[in-house]
Amino acid sequence: MAKLLRAALTALLMLAAPIAAHAQEPRRKVIIDDEGFALMHLMLLESDKVDVVGITTVSGNTWARRATAMALRGLEIASRPDVPVAEGATYPLLNSEVLTERWEALYGKLTWKGAWMKQWVEPTHQSTPAYYGPDDPVDLPWGNARLKASSEIAANFLIRMVHKYPGQITIVACGPLTNLALAQRLDPAFASLAGELVYMGGSLNPQQQLDNVSAAQFAREYANSPRREFNARFDPEAASIVSRSPWRKITVIPADPSTGTQLTPELVKAMTAAADPDLGTFIARMEPGFPMWDEIAAGVLLDPGMVSEAEDLYVDFNSQFGAGYGDMLSWREGYQPGLGERKARVVRKIDAARLDALMVRLMANSRK
Amino acid sequence: MAKLLRAALTALLMLAAPIAAHAQEPRRKVIIDDEGFALMHLMLLESDKVDVVGITTVSGNTWARRATAMALRGLEIASRPDVPVAEGATYPLLNSEVLTERWEALYGKLTWKGAWMKQWVEPTHQSTPAYYGPDDPVDLPWGNARLKASSEIAANFLIRMVHKYPGQITIVACGPLTNLALAQRLDPAFASLAGELVYMGGSLNPQQQLDNVSAAQFAREYANSPRREFNARFDPEAASIVSRSPWRKITVIPADPSTGTQLTPELVKAMTAAADPDLGTFIARMEPGFPMWDEIAAGVLLDPGMVSEAEDLYVDFNSQFGAGYGDMLSWREGYQPGLGERKARVVRKIDAARLDALMVRLMANSRK
Repeated sequence: MAKLLRAALTALLMLAAPIAAHAQEPRRKVIIDDEGFALMHLMLLESDKVDVVGITTVSGNTWARRATAMALRGLEIASRPDVPVAEGATYPLLNSEVLTERWEALYGKLTWKGAWMKQWVEPTHQSTPAYYGPDDPVDLPWGNARLKASSEIAANFLIRMVHKYPGQITIVACGPLTNLALAQRLDPAFASLAGELVYMGGSLNPQQQLDNVSAAQFAREYANSPRREFNARFDPEAASIVSRSPWRKITVIPADPSTGTQLTPELVKAMTAAADPDLGTFIARMEPGFPMWDEIAAGVLLDPGMVSEAEDLYVDFNSQFGAGYGDMLSWREGYQPGLGERKARVVRKIDAARLDALMVRLMANSRK
Repeated sequence: MAKLLRAALTALLMLAAPIAAHAQEPRRKVIIDDEGFALMHLMLLESDKVDVVGITTVSGNTWARRATAMALRGLEIASRPDVPVAEGATYPLLNSEVLTERWEALYGKLTWKGAWMKQWVEPTHQSTPAYYGPDDPVDLPWGNARLKASSEIAANFLIRMVHKYPGQITIVACGPLTNLALAQRLDPAFASLAGELVYMGGSLNPQQQLDNVSAAQFAREYANSPRREFNARFDPEAASIVSRSPWRKITVIPADPSTGTQLTPELVKAMTAAADPDLGTFIARMEPGFPMWDEIAAGVLLDPGMVSEAEDLYVDFNSQFGAGYGDMLSWREGYQPGLGERKARVVRKIDAARLDALMVRLMANSRK
């Protein structure tokens, strides 16, 4: 009798579930795969629409080791010590620092080289980050974390999570795609078990939209190389592997929409004022002037209405070590070669004011 | 006092250790990374010089799934259910079946394509293996295993083992190098923690040495492409990553020494007679005619004296998707480009009769 009652109750609950889900959307589970800790992380951590179930790190703008330390310290500052951090790949699959120098000797200088950057080619407003080796000790300007990283390697953490929550994990990747490529080759079911991939990478044909020194200087990145973008260029083979993997849904944020955005001193001030004082101190120290590449990825995930122009394109990346190494390849339906590349929603323009407003609102959540 | 005594004892033991080690060489710990189960596995399993601490599988001649089933069944036949099997990569890093077909349409047909092989280009003495998909159910001609594979992914198993036994693991890799490349990118310390890498792969300039139909037919593989060999060609990017990793010691068995060897009906008969009857039945069913690519790797490890010609060369593999995709690159000291490629001991010729004799002797060990 008790068994029958339980069965009836279960059936009733199952019928009710879709209605309940409609009434209150469950929080989307998000894993952030990136090489540091900045506003994109804070946006996702502070949002009540998503649940950040982990952060994985990778080398790109900085080495994975430093990125891990930054993520751990960032989580302390954001009072989110509950979020696990798994350190990822130190080196891209095929590309390397020495290979990049040889490439530059053949095809010309790269504007930005991330962890391999020693100096800007031209005088540049933005500071040059200090140059480190992959295993150099880390001493962060905002203090070092007492939190420790998980002993699990990022790719394994990613694989474990998509198996634990099949179809429910959104991966927001804002660095080179090395960890995701490794996860896919370790486990061919990986991509198909993730709910969605949102990544910042690639470049279609960005145009300078803002009229100021920083915007003009960042235009050096794409002015003579409209298909080149740092994340993809740092690990072109990983970008190609990921582009040819069977994701259920892909949203791409190329460099293009970022040219309409900028982390202005005013925006920093507004977020500082909105945030909890401890977090505000952290935000206040951020260097302004940067296009908001990664924040667009978080913004589009949290408020898809900010996208003002997007296109469905088949996307891949050039893994040939020639002049176009790492360049984005894209095709409209019917033109794609059919080598496994997937149709992706590619964001071309966003409403920058709406992104700014969202960011301030999210930082205010830290006071809750 | 007890502490002092213990310290003195420890010091004494440390002094004694090298002498003891000299008196009786400890068995070398070996992990076999390969795509199936054959004589190479049996040679290492039956030798009292090495201790096979694990088998990892990978796609190449056949899909990883089938290779895993073969390894498990092989261990049952060899009465070695204690050896763990970890399944590895189903797909190579960048290469794929469809990409290979496009490549052939540009640069001409490959002689052997492993898991992607549908038929020989020319009439060929050797049987064409059945064509399967990566997830097709496996039904082995010699029965299916009751043994199960480990739940650990091959690359993770490899990483765990080199950390557990730093400097003590010899990896004998006779398939595409996908698992080793993944392990290295997951853990930058991987290669430097292994004791030695012995791999069958690459090709310098093989010459037909035996005068029979099989030997002439296998010469098709290298006659017009002396630098191309199947394992490297199946995953050229993995071969390059592995070649640029900081191994303590590398021994390479290219295709070259294999042209002096052949699994003759006489050798099959001799091994069958020598082996334990159950194992003998398994050996008796082996198809003769093949050059003994992988058996040379096991042979050189167990009896280095069989090497009659070897050279120290810097080795890498061409990962450019052009006519030379997957070709071996090699340089004498001073000519290497310095992109991370390592000096390797490359075996050019071996004493084939000595290999045959060793194989028969090892199979006889199964009677012990």
